[in-house]
Amino acid sequence: MSKNLKNNILLKACRREPTPRTPVWIMRQAGRYLPEYQKVRSRADFLTMCRTPELAAEVTLQPVEIIGVDAAIIFSDILVIPQAMGMNLNFVEGRGPIFETPLRMEKDFNKLRPVSVEEDLGYVLKALQLVKNELAGSVPLIGFAGAPWTLAAYMIEGHGSKNFTEIKSLMYKAPDLLRGLLDKLSIAVADFLSAQIKAGAQVVQIFDSWAGILTPEDFRTFSLPYITRIVQTIKTMGAPVIVFARNAGHSFEALAGIGADVLSVSWTEDLQDAKKMVNGKVALQGNLDPCALFAPREEIRKQVISVLEKAGNGVGHIFNLGHGILPETPVENAKALVEFVKEESENRKARQE
Amino acid sequence: MSKNLKNNILLKACRREPTPRTPVWIMRQAGRYLPEYQKVRSRADFLTMCRTPELAAEVTLQPVEIIGVDAAIIFSDILVIPQAMGMNLNFVEGRGPIFETPLRMEKDFNKLRPVSVEEDLGYVLKALQLVKNELAGSVPLIGFAGAPWTLAAYMIEGHGSKNFTEIKSLMYKAPDLLRGLLDKLSIAVADFLSAQIKAGAQVVQIFDSWAGILTPEDFRTFSLPYITRIVQTIKTMGAPVIVFARNAGHSFEALAGIGADVLSVSWTEDLQDAKKMVNGKVALQGNLDPCALFAPREEIRKQVISVLEKAGNGVGHIFNLGHGILPETPVENAKALVEFVKEESENRKARQE
Repeated sequence: MSKNLKNNILLKACRREPTPRTPVWIMRQAGRYLPEYQKVRSRADFLTMCRTPELAAEVTLQPVEIIGVDAAIIFSDILVIPQAMGMNLNFVEGRGPIFETPLRMEKDFNKLRPVSVEEDLGYVLKALQLVKNELAGSVPLIGFAGAPWTLAAYMIEGHGSKNFTEIKSLMYKAPDLLRGLLDKLSIAVADFLSAQIKAGAQVVQIFDSWAGILTPEDFRTFSLPYITRIVQTIKTMGAPVIVFARNAGHSFEALAGIGADVLSVSWTEDLQDAKKMVNGKVALQGNLDPCALFAPREEIRKQVISVLEKAGNGVGHIFNLGHGILPETPVENAKALVEFVKEESENRKARQE
Repeated sequence: MSKNLKNNILLKACRREPTPRTPVWIMRQAGRYLPEYQKVRSRADFLTMCRTPELAAEVTLQPVEIIGVDAAIIFSDILVIPQAMGMNLNFVEGRGPIFETPLRMEKDFNKLRPVSVEEDLGYVLKALQLVKNELAGSVPLIGFAGAPWTLAAYMIEGHGSKNFTEIKSLMYKAPDLLRGLLDKLSIAVADFLSAQIKAGAQVVQIFDSWAGILTPEDFRTFSLPYITRIVQTIKTMGAPVIVFARNAGHSFEALAGIGADVLSVSWTEDLQDAKKMVNGKVALQGNLDPCALFAPREEIRKQVISVLEKAGNGVGHIFNLGHGILPETPVENAKALVEFVKEESENRKARQE
């Protein structure tokens, strides 16, 4: 698969093979910081963009062209799965995603439909195919899905939350109900990622954005086993799997053993510590503070160098932010980031040889 | 000092001396979950309560009586220091504290007044004296202040924030301006804590609530040195110092060496990992997930036992939540927590002997 790619350094880094320089892409790179994205967005709301393959494909391709990243990631949202299960999803300006009727009673859970990926999420697969054709092998295409715990958190809270009291109460009061939901979600996510790989995704990332709100023990009970099950289901399909368990650095050792190829590291964790914990078992992705892109140009370079230094010899390292790029980020700084990663990692390789 | 106390187990635990059972108190124990607090609050707004020694004293004493905790912590707010420096502070229902004019330009920083604790914060000292008299040696009294980094974050953002882009931008663009502010805050906090100790506080806690938004390196640059300076200034005064650097578990090893007596551990960190990192140099406080207080009664007991088990032999352990108690917490569950900690830690001691 990677043989047909002009730029396959991301895939090589996922497999911890040496690369001439460090690959770089940016979480949420198809996003609001890009004027070209805003232009599309001004014509269609967020969910319409997700559900219209041509629009999703268009914004997916933008950062490859404009920012020069080493991969495209399909424009979509992790909440398309709960939506496919029958939940009513809205995006409210300034408030983010909201489920009108969050899951609270047992009957709410029972109403959820099993997901038929082809029927319910065909629009994502279609968008992947369009992008794949357009890319014509220039860079690899990344697919993604939310982790069961994070999806469940949104479905039960109804929206992003500060304290997540609803899902945690449920975790204590009706753990079996929660487990039932996590089971269903694991199946849906594994099906969805398999279909994305079949539709052309060459790498997939699982986003456990809310991993960090759990105690280490609860993470290992209510999140890790479900991510593991998904990874085990899809890992033989030939596409490397990246797991981003945000702020769950306490469990890197465990995460390194579930069969994933790459762990994505938040900026709040030390990349060197992470390297020690995973002990060469997986590649690492990350982990510049997204706020570093508000720094002056030469300070961004320093920050890039600092991350590259922590990544050691650079083998098995994918440069990325420690979380999604912020909407207020100046485009020229995102460009500078990519430029500096390429330049500085190439310099480092040259010095090492 | 501790000799005159009827219940001095908190002080002993701070000094890692054996105690007959594990001491317990709750962050924000004088707070909205208590109907008795709500009653006072219905007559006065939050800031009036802080600034009226009689009201502050009244609610400070409530949880000692009602919940049975092993310490009182003075009712106040970390933002009284920025207010004393001349910033206009408001508490908006549902939005939390807001500074009308956050620090943005150099001139905003220059306008800040040095704090005269007696003049500007005398009301806190008065409240401490009132509480101390009322307690009559029943349990120790805890004073507190915010850490410079966390105070600066509020002062520059203007309110709690999701991404903290303002203070981080400043950190990159004008680090010396930020350092100047952190210097000023360090002096004010050290003065304030010294005065609190003189007014009767037998323990003090420094809250670095936003420590966790920094990269480990930035924490060691923009927060840790200032906390260190404060601890070094006050540590000879005879009152143990607790440092709560929330979500900064990456730096526990460093934090254990700054001269503080106790580190407070968030629920998102593993207490056993923390124990290893601090290697017997300091006592540990924490770290039950505040959401565990939404669990059924017997599940709370299990959670308490789990924390006690992680604390090992219990020497040098203060039971607490990993963050403040949530306003929606049922009072009977807070009572159950305290009851279970007392009962179960006593049982464990008995079994060990």
